[in-house]
Amino acid sequence: MTWSLEEVANHKDASSCWVIIDKCVYDVTEFLPEHPGGSSIILKYAGRDATSAYKPIHPSDALDKKLSSSQHLGPVSDDAAKILAKKEASKEKTKDELRVEQAMKQRPPLNRILNLSDMEEVAKQVLPYKTWAYYRSAADDEITFQENAQAFNRFFFHARVMRPVSKCDSSTRILGFETSLPIFASSAALAKLGHPLGEVNITRGCAPSKIVQIVSTAASLSYAEIAAASSPSQTLFFQYYKLKDDTVALKSIREIERLGYRAICLSVDIVVPSTRDRDVKSSWVLDAQENGVKVYNEGEADVDAGLGNAGSLIVNGDRDMTWEKTIPWLRSVTKLPLVIKGIQSVEDAILAAEAGVDGILISNHGGRQLEYSLPPLEILYRLRTQRPEIFQKLEVYIDGGVRRGTDVVKAVCLGAKAAGLGRAFLYAQSAYGEVGVRKVIDILEREILTTMRLLGAAKIADLTPDLVERVDWQPLAHAVKL
Amino acid sequence: MTWSLEEVANHKDASSCWVIIDKCVYDVTEFLPEHPGGSSIILKYAGRDATSAYKPIHPSDALDKKLSSSQHLGPVSDDAAKILAKKEASKEKTKDELRVEQAMKQRPPLNRILNLSDMEEVAKQVLPYKTWAYYRSAADDEITFQENAQAFNRFFFHARVMRPVSKCDSSTRILGFETSLPIFASSAALAKLGHPLGEVNITRGCAPSKIVQIVSTAASLSYAEIAAASSPSQTLFFQYYKLKDDTVALKSIREIERLGYRAICLSVDIVVPSTRDRDVKSSWVLDAQENGVKVYNEGEADVDAGLGNAGSLIVNGDRDMTWEKTIPWLRSVTKLPLVIKGIQSVEDAILAAEAGVDGILISNHGGRQLEYSLPPLEILYRLRTQRPEIFQKLEVYIDGGVRRGTDVVKAVCLGAKAAGLGRAFLYAQSAYGEVGVRKVIDILEREILTTMRLLGAAKIADLTPDLVERVDWQPLAHAVKL
Amino acid sequence: MTWSLEEVANHKDASSCWVIIDKCVYDVTEFLPEHPGGSSIILKYAGRDATSAYKPIHPSDALDKKLSSSQHLGPVSDDAAKILAKKEASKEKTKDELRVEQAMKQRPPLNRILNLSDMEEVAKQVLPYKTWAYYRSAADDEITFQENAQAFNRFFFHARVMRPVSKCDSSTRILGFETSLPIFASSAALAKLGHPLGEVNITRGCAPSKIVQIVSTAASLSYAEIAAASSPSQTLFFQYYKLKDDTVALKSIREIERLGYRAICLSVDIVVPSTRDRDVKSSWVLDAQENGVKVYNEGEADVDAGLGNAGSLIVNGDRDMTWEKTIPWLRSVTKLPLVIKGIQSVEDAILAAEAGVDGILISNHGGRQLEYSLPPLEILYRLRTQRPEIFQKLEVYIDGGVRRGTDVVKAVCLGAKAAGLGRAFLYAQSAYGEVGVRKVIDILEREILTTMRLLGAAKIADLTPDLVERVDWQPLAHAVKL
Amino acid sequence: MTWSLEEVANHKDASSCWVIIDKCVYDVTEFLPEHPGGSSIILKYAGRDATSAYKPIHPSDALDKKLSSSQHLGPVSDDAAKILAKKEASKEKTKDELRVEQAMKQRPPLNRILNLSDMEEVAKQVLPYKTWAYYRSAADDEITFQENAQAFNRFFFHARVMRPVSKCDSSTRILGFETSLPIFASSAALAKLGHPLGEVNITRGCAPSKIVQIVSTAASLSYAEIAAASSPSQTLFFQYYKLKDDTVALKSIREIERLGYRAICLSVDIVVPSTRDRDVKSSWVLDAQENGVKVYNEGEADVDAGLGNAGSLIVNGDRDMTWEKTIPWLRSVTKLPLVIKGIQSVEDAILAAEAGVDGILISNHGGRQLEYSLPPLEILYRLRTQRPEIFQKLEVYIDGGVRRGTDVVKAVCLGAKAAGLGRAFLYAQSAYGEVGVRKVIDILEREILTTMRLLGAAKIADLTPDLVERVDWQPLAHAVKL
Repeated sequence: MTWSLEEVANHKDASSCWVIIDKCVYDVTEFLPEHPGGSSIILKYAGRDATSAYKPIHPSDALDKKLSSSQHLGPVSDDAAKILAKKEASKEKTKDELRVEQAMKQRPPLNRILNLSDMEEVAKQVLPYKTWAYYRSAADDEITFQENAQAFNRFFFHARVMRPVSKCDSSTRILGFETSLPIFASSAALAKLGHPLGEVNITRGCAPSKIVQIVSTAASLSYAEIAAASSPSQTLFFQYYKLKDDTVALKSIREIERLGYRAICLSVDIVVPSTRDRDVKSSWVLDAQENGVKVYNEGEADVDAGLGNAGSLIVNGDRDMTWEKTIPWLRSVTKLPLVIKGIQSVEDAILAAEAGVDGILISNHGGRQLEYSLPPLEILYRLRTQRPEIFQKLEVYIDGGVRRGTDVVKAVCLGAKAAGLGRAFLYAQSAYGEVGVRKVIDILEREILTTMRLLGAAKIADLTPDLVERVDWQPLAHAVKL
Repeated sequence: MTWSLEEVANHKDASSCWVIIDKCVYDVTEFLPEHPGGSSIILKYAGRDATSAYKPIHPSDALDKKLSSSQHLGPVSDDAAKILAKKEASKEKTKDELRVEQAMKQRPPLNRILNLSDMEEVAKQVLPYKTWAYYRSAADDEITFQENAQAFNRFFFHARVMRPVSKCDSSTRILGFETSLPIFASSAALAKLGHPLGEVNITRGCAPSKIVQIVSTAASLSYAEIAAASSPSQTLFFQYYKLKDDTVALKSIREIERLGYRAICLSVDIVVPSTRDRDVKSSWVLDAQENGVKVYNEGEADVDAGLGNAGSLIVNGDRDMTWEKTIPWLRSVTKLPLVIKGIQSVEDAILAAEAGVDGILISNHGGRQLEYSLPPLEILYRLRTQRPEIFQKLEVYIDGGVRRGTDVVKAVCLGAKAAGLGRAFLYAQSAYGEVGVRKVIDILEREILTTMRLLGAAKIADLTPDLVERVDWQPLAHAVKL
Repeated sequence: MTWSLEEVANHKDASSCWVIIDKCVYDVTEFLPEHPGGSSIILKYAGRDATSAYKPIHPSDALDKKLSSSQHLGPVSDDAAKILAKKEASKEKTKDELRVEQAMKQRPPLNRILNLSDMEEVAKQVLPYKTWAYYRSAADDEITFQENAQAFNRFFFHARVMRPVSKCDSSTRILGFETSLPIFASSAALAKLGHPLGEVNITRGCAPSKIVQIVSTAASLSYAEIAAASSPSQTLFFQYYKLKDDTVALKSIREIERLGYRAICLSVDIVVPSTRDRDVKSSWVLDAQENGVKVYNEGEADVDAGLGNAGSLIVNGDRDMTWEKTIPWLRSVTKLPLVIKGIQSVEDAILAAEAGVDGILISNHGGRQLEYSLPPLEILYRLRTQRPEIFQKLEVYIDGGVRRGTDVVKAVCLGAKAAGLGRAFLYAQSAYGEVGVRKVIDILEREILTTMRLLGAAKIADLTPDLVERVDWQPLAHAVKL
Repeated sequence: MTWSLEEVANHKDASSCWVIIDKCVYDVTEFLPEHPGGSSIILKYAGRDATSAYKPIHPSDALDKKLSSSQHLGPVSDDAAKILAKKEASKEKTKDELRVEQAMKQRPPLNRILNLSDMEEVAKQVLPYKTWAYYRSAADDEITFQENAQAFNRFFFHARVMRPVSKCDSSTRILGFETSLPIFASSAALAKLGHPLGEVNITRGCAPSKIVQIVSTAASLSYAEIAAASSPSQTLFFQYYKLKDDTVALKSIREIERLGYRAICLSVDIVVPSTRDRDVKSSWVLDAQENGVKVYNEGEADVDAGLGNAGSLIVNGDRDMTWEKTIPWLRSVTKLPLVIKGIQSVEDAILAAEAGVDGILISNHGGRQLEYSLPPLEILYRLRTQRPEIFQKLEVYIDGGVRRGTDVVKAVCLGAKAAGLGRAFLYAQSAYGEVGVRKVIDILEREILTTMRLLGAAKIADLTPDLVERVDWQPLAHAVKL
């Protein structure tokens, strides 16, 4: 049985809501309240083709996972398919699409990307504005976002000379898993918005150098697709966004265990969505480009502007996790090592150690959650100074604001096993796909090895706290453009 | 009996001074020396129609309160009324009026106002330049104005994770009165300059969330009109600018007691006017727009430029208040709770506690009075650190520089019961009237609740000093434009 | 006997050097080596009319003081006078002169000058570029010049409230002499460059409020002319630049004693000239305006660029003054009170007290001498903190960087008897003559009184160190333009 | 025997590689792996004329030193010479060459260069872009480059007055060798890129004032040519970049001993090349000027961008130097005094003293090597504060960020025997040749003497630590443009 567009169009509200995705019809009426992004975004497409909105942000297995087979209503009719295809073909390109098309042709050769700022610059040019705004955005006025990076500027090196460094080894281990560099790909959602191959670009790019990838709960590819793309010697961790309902929450753990993911990184810094102004405002910017400025009509209702992409990802999360309840439950349901992602205070680092977790990722979600959260490097520094014994009890990682090999080395000197990068990988895969990811790693490898050698360090263990100093003046801003 | 324009025009100096307001004639000869704004501004309109200058800054009951019935001379003649109306109608719009008209049409829809900076931006567009300059202006070089806001940047959060926050309650009490948020509308004069409904917009906007409003002595609506606009569950306080003459000073206390105001906030930071360059200069900017630049003529007298709107409000104030005299007098004349508004040092906070007042509002009048007064947040921080016991003896509030929910939460962590906003409400009501005020509160509610949850705080009492840290570096400026 | 231009022209080098000034001929051959500005500047006019270069920088009695009667050769012939007058009349105006002419017509009315920055802005417009560059210039990169002002920004007030201030008295005494405000006109040379009446504008402007004026050794009017312009109740001090030769050095002391000057301020911070790039470069800027850019010719000699106006004033100064020798000599030759001007360290403040002088003026010559000299306010603060007893032994003054009444009040709180302003008076008299000077004093009076009242201080003695705090953050820059 | 271009062209790859330089043919096949700049740059010219690439960066004796006589194959034929000459003559000038030509004509007269920033400005105009980028470039984001200079801003003077300074002597000794100023020309490579006479300009410019010159291992003139250009009373040191192979490493020591160099400065901060983005990117800038922007082709290989000029200089260096091995070896092979150049921590200064070397040059290679190396002045300050006795054991020098005489005096106050400048001399000789170098010294002499006198110091020994203070605020940026 097939469906005409007219039949589908009859199911256009919450009482009966059908949508077309890739020429198939789905009844999502019952699913509406469960949608992590809320029902309103679906209802916008009720009774219509939702493919272009659906595909860039959902993994391929989402429809199978979320809808029962009875809700898969079958394909549209051939006539309907033709009409949809014609509509698609005749759609005029928006100004932003035309801009992106042009920018893609202007990308510099890969070997002219000397550092991560260069890569970000290309990504900013070639990304659809809305995607760039989502990737780049941060909470409120983006103070924390910027302070994360600035924090690295306050730490200078005490370089040591006359030490043999012709051989220099930057390899280390994370939870026992090999990596050629003390870095990892921190979880970052919705990679497909930037490139059709999405997260798999990161997976493949990380393979040669065995860089650990933390796969996001909100990955735009299925966990299976990502696992399938990985090489046998490669390590994948799972960024775990725990849902309220323990039974549902358990499902994804079982799935990633089965797929060979090696650790669980429980996100604790995103119990509620923040406001990311740049993200929310991005649609208006595009709307103004296409349709001109929208103005206020006296007395018009104040419809909520929503929370952008960020908000829609976490509607059903567990907002009542505790050390006493959540950690034992996790330990009881899985043997995978457990990392707490989103530690933002020395006090909670201590509680994590007491709770016996395997590692903590000091992170404020790249400045995307609590505005004025202390920069991770500052937390690391305090932990190192005030409670050095904690580093013996669990592994400590950091992410947020890492832009240069010097940043990574500073973090390692202060006790971090590794430093993560999120946006950098999103930007790289958006700009150049898999080779972009590899380029980022090559750049960091060169920068890390150069820094180690010029510091007089021949191996990771040589990177000790006495090599860095937190200076008492205000250094110049990071990443001055040449 | 009615008056011709010619008859009125005969009374055009201090020896006999008549003015026309709303087609009625008043003899203000005896009132001249009592006018808080000084006599010269009245004499400018002596023998003429003063309506357009009078109405936007005086409450409707001012003429009745200030003039005896014998000074109400009665209406102008019909002919006179016609001439005045014709004159009014034929007045050409100024460049600034045309600009405002245009800007009002360009206001963005309310739901595109994401934060208080967005709101201020709209207000700056739609306000008459002179009004904007008055609202926005501050003392001297506006250092204190800016430092008030910058002070919040030095305080970062120690966010706590793994704490239940699905239920999060931001409500608290101010002098025992309920409020859904730890904020209040701090007194701000002359709201009618920005919107015909003036202070009532704030009153109505605050009603649904029970936000306390401190009504200014210099409100442009009568205290009765404001009280009448309030809802029964709503709380109004009175910002009390004490006059020299105790008998006169008592009058307004008796009035607001009768009207149901719940507390008196005695202003102590404005015993003399400051210079607010932006305010004083605003007329010249407009004058230059209309009539071109004015130049110096060798030897011309140096007529005083005056002190702008600010100066005219406080000519007859009591400049000799003391703890020993003024507080006991106030206690003797009223049972209303007493808050001292304008505390600017730890020492005076202690004296206030010793004097047994109910609360102090740490404030430097939004940077409008003493340039280089310490930012209120810094005073609060010192009081918290040096004299924590004071917080047990009286309630402490703060205003000045609050722009974000994070600012409010920081102040509450440091011991403030609530943080006030002044200009934000003026801007909001100017731009959108009552719904603008509600929007401001909605924004702050979202920001405060998000901040609390991401901090791991489920109720106001969870906001404790250990959650904030005053950092030793120079953070980025507040409110970076996106 | 009169001289033809041809006869004068025969004496055109160092072997015999005549110049014409105001139609009279002078033989300056023997004077050449004694000229404080060096001989080369005179030789440029040898055998020619030097009037236009000579007059704006020399007092009227200079020719009588410096040349013997036999060197006064008498007037030029009538023919010569006609030719010179014609030449003068036919001189085309330079671009800069035309610019100044225009700017003079555009000056704002005096009552639109609200603060000292406004006044400086007018002066910058109406001054010949070379004069502005000389007044405004400072050593090297002008760091100290700017830091002098910025230092005030680090000091905030602890305002006190509930203190009677309806009566507020800003008067004080300097070395026992009355002044209505704790300010003085610090010595500043060459006022005639900015206005034909020069220093006398300052004298007359200071008279009504009894502001002390320190007259510069290098004043462009004679000490007698300035004294003659002063009112009986007014106080003049003398800024004494001691020459190498004690006998010559004594002359000016005897003169100013006779003229009724009340104190000697010995300059100790200008034993050699600094480089003031802006001053030196100013002629090139003008030259480029008139004649286009000058370029290098391979192999051309590197003729010294000189040291600008500053250098020429101090060629014959005593570079070997000591506490042991110079102070006793001065005490032995005069009974006038003695102030050391140019103290730049706590150590020297102590030595000055031990040497028994009457006062010290902490100053780095307005940032015009030693680059990276500590800001005077910082020295004052250290002296107050480290050696409070010094303030009992001598009077302490300060100058450099004072822009606002708040600056003055801060200095007084920290122990200064008064704060001096130099450029502010030069700018004011250049822009508006005597009334400009009075305007500056009026502005400061308003600002000082307002600050005192808002601080809770009713008299100078109420200004105590506890009212100011040196903050530990980087406040915003001084004098933000509105 | 002579060679036709066709014959040479047959040897165009690594199996047999011939190049033409100045009309002579060389077989560099065997030399390829030994080339410090790597083989690829030579192979670019295999079988072709390499003169224009070779000459500006190689000393005249390089071909004799590096190639055996059998590899000198003899001249090209007359026909070939004609063709090459014609080709050279017909080469069109690039945009950058035309720009430089124009800029050379616009250089200001030498006496209008008032300070080192002025000189740098001229150099920036007249240098080929690629050369400027190489000279000016620094590691990564050039933070350390800038912080080196900013560090001087944090040190202010405690000027002392009333001290005899009419006589003021700035002369001192470096390792016993006389110098008229406490400065030296720090080693800087490839001076010929900026001026045909290259390093010899510096040598000759330094002669009159006996300024010590440290000649770079990578000088673009032969050590002999430089020695020959020096005057008998002048002192040359040798910046020694030790090669892996001790026998080869010894050769240059023997050579410079023979030539009369007076000390060896062993470079220890450049064991591996850094990334200097500005340097690497400079060719692309030029390429874009000539040929337009280059774009990425999907799938194209990522050929390494190389490390610019910097990288090519140090391919065969000793990366395994140690205090235990390298110092004794050096002491065993030469009696010349030994300075360690590139000390970047207090700890290594102590080790250097223990190793008994004669001096240390605290330096981070002008910010060109390890990004976030502490500024040399900060290291000096810490050494002075923490380990003052080290200054008795060896001589301490500093380089990096010196721009003004005040900078030099600050370093000397803190214990440095002298402060070095590198880029300043490269810029000066590029802009004006030898007289440019002399100008730089004249400027510094004037600035140093003025600073000493205004500080109350009559000789170098008077420059003591109590005259400087490290301030606790953020001073204004260095070298504000007027």
